[in-house]
Amino acid sequence: MNRHRVVIVGAGFGGLFAAKALRRADVDVTLINGTTYHLFQPLLYQVATGILSEGEVAPPIREILRRQDNVDVRLGWVRDVDVEARTVEVAGPGVSYTVGYDSLIFAAGSSQSYFGNDGFAADAPGMKSVDDALELRARIFHAFEIADLQTDPADVERWMTFVIVGAGPTGTEMAGQIAELAHRTLPGQYRHIDPHRARIVLVDAVGAVLNTFGDQLSTRALRELHQLGVEVELNTTVVGVDPEGIDVETVRGRERIPAMTKVWAAGVSAPPLARRLAEATGASTDRAGRILVEPDTTIPGHPEIFVVGDLMALPGRDGRQLPGVAQVAIQSGRYAAGQIRARLAGRTAERPFRYFDKGSLAVISRFSAVASIGRLRLSGFPAWLIWLVVHLFYLVGFKNRVSAVLHWAVSFLGRGRSERVTTLQQVYARTAMRDFGDPFAHPGDGAGSTAVGAGAGSPRTSR
Amino acid sequence: MNRHRVVIVGAGFGGLFAAKALRRADVDVTLINGTTYHLFQPLLYQVATGILSEGEVAPPIREILRRQDNVDVRLGWVRDVDVEARTVEVAGPGVSYTVGYDSLIFAAGSSQSYFGNDGFAADAPGMKSVDDALELRARIFHAFEIADLQTDPADVERWMTFVIVGAGPTGTEMAGQIAELAHRTLPGQYRHIDPHRARIVLVDAVGAVLNTFGDQLSTRALRELHQLGVEVELNTTVVGVDPEGIDVETVRGRERIPAMTKVWAAGVSAPPLARRLAEATGASTDRAGRILVEPDTTIPGHPEIFVVGDLMALPGRDGRQLPGVAQVAIQSGRYAAGQIRARLAGRTAERPFRYFDKGSLAVISRFSAVASIGRLRLSGFPAWLIWLVVHLFYLVGFKNRVSAVLHWAVSFLGRGRSERVTTLQQVYARTAMRDFGDPFAHPGDGAGSTAVGAGAGSPRTSR
Repeated sequence: MNRHRVVIVGAGFGGLFAAKALRRADVDVTLINGTTYHLFQPLLYQVATGILSEGEVAPPIREILRRQDNVDVRLGWVRDVDVEARTVEVAGPGVSYTVGYDSLIFAAGSSQSYFGNDGFAADAPGMKSVDDALELRARIFHAFEIADLQTDPADVERWMTFVIVGAGPTGTEMAGQIAELAHRTLPGQYRHIDPHRARIVLVDAVGAVLNTFGDQLSTRALRELHQLGVEVELNTTVVGVDPEGIDVETVRGRERIPAMTKVWAAGVSAPPLARRLAEATGASTDRAGRILVEPDTTIPGHPEIFVVGDLMALPGRDGRQLPGVAQVAIQSGRYAAGQIRARLAGRTAERPFRYFDKGSLAVISRFSAVASIGRLRLSGFPAWLIWLVVHLFYLVGFKNRVSAVLHWAVSFLGRGRSERVTTLQQVYARTAMRDFGDPFAHPGDGAGSTAVGAGAGSPRTSR
Repeated sequence: MNRHRVVIVGAGFGGLFAAKALRRADVDVTLINGTTYHLFQPLLYQVATGILSEGEVAPPIREILRRQDNVDVRLGWVRDVDVEARTVEVAGPGVSYTVGYDSLIFAAGSSQSYFGNDGFAADAPGMKSVDDALELRARIFHAFEIADLQTDPADVERWMTFVIVGAGPTGTEMAGQIAELAHRTLPGQYRHIDPHRARIVLVDAVGAVLNTFGDQLSTRALRELHQLGVEVELNTTVVGVDPEGIDVETVRGRERIPAMTKVWAAGVSAPPLARRLAEATGASTDRAGRILVEPDTTIPGHPEIFVVGDLMALPGRDGRQLPGVAQVAIQSGRYAAGQIRARLAGRTAERPFRYFDKGSLAVISRFSAVASIGRLRLSGFPAWLIWLVVHLFYLVGFKNRVSAVLHWAVSFLGRGRSERVTTLQQVYARTAMRDFGDPFAHPGDGAGSTAVGAGAGSPRTSR
């Protein structure tokens, strides 16, 4: 007899924890993901700002699940779900394939939203993927290098201004880290610019930073950002983004901020596949494209399809939609796995999904964070210590290796920005620098063996 | 009065050590390099095979020289040298500039050579730059992933065959590391393939691996490679490379090896800029394009221009040309700096450059290496220990941070391949996978939040 087949779409927090929770279940799990790694997204900003390497926040899925025999990890992009035939259509590299399911856990996650202005993406990259983080790393570090080469003071200022759109945890953490870079790491390393003079501007349409953390921590975070030298522009809407600057609508009226480097940390939306799944099942979606699910996280009329994580629209105990955070994804993924196990054991009508809010954490700068845990509000060093312990604890669970934990401990505690390397493709093929110079024009023409090597490789990029 | 101006072209081993050796000299140094980092090239193969992150082998030049006030580090590609006006023309990102010199240290390094078959580059990347290493990392790890998705046994075999061209230290180390990956790291992580069945083929036109290490170590290395499961094809010339395989001329005749993944570690040549400098100065070049220099490493008739490192053609004590290795570059860079200091002190006619051969090291596998030091020949664990100590010692000198050394120690001693992350651009824009699938065709269509995030960013790549 064939075993119950569970297909999980996506190996983010929701999909990965669902797979892990099925470890001892008598099922065959197929876990489909578009990359070979799970991404620990809350630390992605540390990759963008040179603290961690991409490998430290993105362990291979196979490595995490290597001792779990009932999971088949497959690389590919799910193109469609046939809810009648109960199959998913997958495009893999060089091969398309179909996987049948008895239960489907849909955990495809959210993508960056530019609120209808997708044209902003080219000049203000988001912070959702490793590609995004490495591109931002290239933009941020090269901005200082290029500023150092400029002769016109206006050009210097443009290259040394960094605008971060969105003052949630990701935007706040990015602003804090760029400020630390400018004021603590880089000073003394340039001859023609003073990194201290960098402008870091954090913009948000609402009236507070870390809005969801409550007034007390929001005020504390704002004060700390000011101490770090970050300009915070609240009640400010972005109306235009181009290679050389950003246009905003502030309480003072319309203004322009000349800035070569922009970061978009403002919003998320559902990928097109979520819309297709909703159409196929007749499910409703909310404004952000999330799928409205039953209290047991399944699609109405489709008890075999679970939607977990960012794509799940479900009210919490307070009546408000559960937020798109890692803890909701982890808990809903585990819950869906539990429901499948319960059904196979002949039990039905399990209790509905209840989200247990373990709290929120955001790092402002090194050794300083804000934490909201139950009724507890913490800030400064104690909050940072909690952040450190929580993250090390989770990361250990993923990587399971003493060496990895040592790596992290060293990276978190050290002052260095040792991960500053950017590839020529990231710098010149995808950034604002694409219009400048032309390192690929004369293969092998560079200065230094590294540039020469890259030059020699450049025929490949133009193919 | 203006200080003596030294321009150094390239921040590889030659240029960087020249700059460091000028630390206490009464000169203004301008160090021009095409990337922001110095590349520790002997460890680049560890980036390609997932052991080290790119940041661990490529410290920022500014960071290394942060305490040296007389150096101005500038990003840019040297386009030309005007030997009459004594200026170098540089193309930087968004700005072109000219730098005048009183002394020029030309340390632009070598680029990959395909011996006239530049078309091989697209399908058999070299190992000269961080871009190369990350591209190879993407090709190697994705080869296993894609093999796992194939249904035709011939396709599986093609994806699981790895051909490394060139059995010098880089090629031998790559072959050893891919074999360890296939036989020690990856087994048990796939459901449809057995990584043990991977074929790793090391090809060279000469009759021995690690030819320059002498018969004894060469034989020992060959035996170890066989034990690791590497097929070694000596006296074998590559006559064709295409996406799906490689054609070779062996002692048995012409053969084809179906293989999706090829690595080129076979040869180096001088960049075009070296030829232009030779023409401008009337200097002779050897077959590889290296510039024939005086015993004091200067160009004949141009005592103000030093050529050091890979681009310097100079016979050693045994009458043979000095090899293009890190030690020659370091020592000649320091020597050139010393000559400049001596001249400024009014001393002339210093003794000619003499290379002191500290020995050669190559790692075959974890805990096993070969070492040739003076008359000493070592192999196995003792040689590996020497390798470890030598590399940690040098790396400490570059990065100067306890945390960096801890990082390395952990990486070298650990069994993990924690740096397996590849970006979508590296996988799909630049590799053999470019013809397969089309992850960018439907933005936001991927499986999993990471793929979705990357999908959302894809409009940028098509611009």
